[in-house]
Amino acid sequence: MMRRQRRSAEETREAILETAERLFRARGYSAVSIADIAAELDMSPANVFKHFKSKLTLGRATAYRHGRRLAERCSIDDSSAPPDEKLILFLSRLAREHMRDKAENQYLFEMIPLVLEDPAKGGRIYRRLVEETLTGLIAEGMEMGIYRAGDAALDAALIVDMMASVLHPKMMGCADPATLSDKTQLILELIDGGLKYRVAK
Amino acid sequence: MMRRQRRSAEETREAILETAERLFRARGYSAVSIADIAAELDMSPANVFKHFKSKLTLGRATAYRHGRRLAERCSIDDSSAPPDEKLILFLSRLAREHMRDKAENQYLFEMIPLVLEDPAKGGRIYRRLVEETLTGLIAEGMEMGIYRAGDAALDAALIVDMMASVLHPKMMGCADPATLSDKTQLILELIDGGLKYRVAK
Repeated sequence: MMRRQRRSAEETREAILETAERLFRARGYSAVSIADIAAELDMSPANVFKHFKSKLTLGRATAYRHGRRLAERCSIDDSSAPPDEKLILFLSRLAREHMRDKAENQYLFEMIPLVLEDPAKGGRIYRRLVEETLTGLIAEGMEMGIYRAGDAALDAALIVDMMASVLHPKMMGCADPATLSDKTQLILELIDGGLKYRVAK
Repeated sequence: MMRRQRRSAEETREAILETAERLFRARGYSAVSIADIAAELDMSPANVFKHFKSKLTLGRATAYRHGRRLAERCSIDDSSAPPDEKLILFLSRLAREHMRDKAENQYLFEMIPLVLEDPAKGGRIYRRLVEETLTGLIAEGMEMGIYRAGDAALDAALIVDMMASVLHPKMMGCADPATLSDKTQLILELIDGGLKYRVAK
């Protein structure tokens, strides 16, 4: 009988991260110890410490991992749909995912200021990614004559600000998902009409 | 020679309020005492206390007075301009006045949570006034066929949210007046185009 192969260091690291994130998400960063994580994995705490030298290091790695997942949202599917449709789809999806974050990932977001030295930096990087995706779509729409000519990057930044009430966790308030979704739809109709037909003063 | 008439109670009250506001505005509520206000007016503190039974009462009266001035901004001039022009004028003026508040009246706004029992209430009343003015203009524009048909009150609420980055003191950040003014202009062009040409999905 073959002996069960030991997990590679990379696999162990991944398993620790997976478990840490699950526990942080369920109970909050402060309420979870390295011992809790080790127990879930049938490991000794010493073994966890071999991979992450402190709970802070592990918290940071979890935050970065979450950040990479957020960044993936900023990719747009490579369909042949026109840019104005892609823009609406992209922003509706983003608003939906922010609502889900607020409902499900509250503990992960509360962890950020506890583990990162510059907590606002992640937010700035994320915002820049969203703006870059938007800028690309707006520029394409302008080239195709779907949108009025203008400064695509400036419009992208404005649009992110104009959607703060459905994208920014602190501005979304306690509205329920159905209300926020209707609101997003109406805001996007106004923005779409604006990009297509505004008259520059 | 006629003896100089004594000020009426109403006039004294008004003079105290005037002076209190000037001092609160210059030094902040906490740094100003009833004695300071009395000294500025060549009065005894006891005389001030005859009109306002405590510094808190005087702070509240100053806050209400400021609130009434803010409310006056929500009136629109009775010109014969079409509603879409009035809407742009109203919102540009509002954004400009919010910028000035942030620059000049910081101490007055910081006083609100110190003197009012429900500090958020003033904000809600002010927001409602802004929304009512906007609703009136949008409804007029819809009736005249300048704007696409829709729910004017819902649009008004959306537009206030969409302008948070140039209206809300906490969202305006530290941008300089020229940048904020350009930004307001661009946001208003998008909103104007949206109201006129959006296509409801």
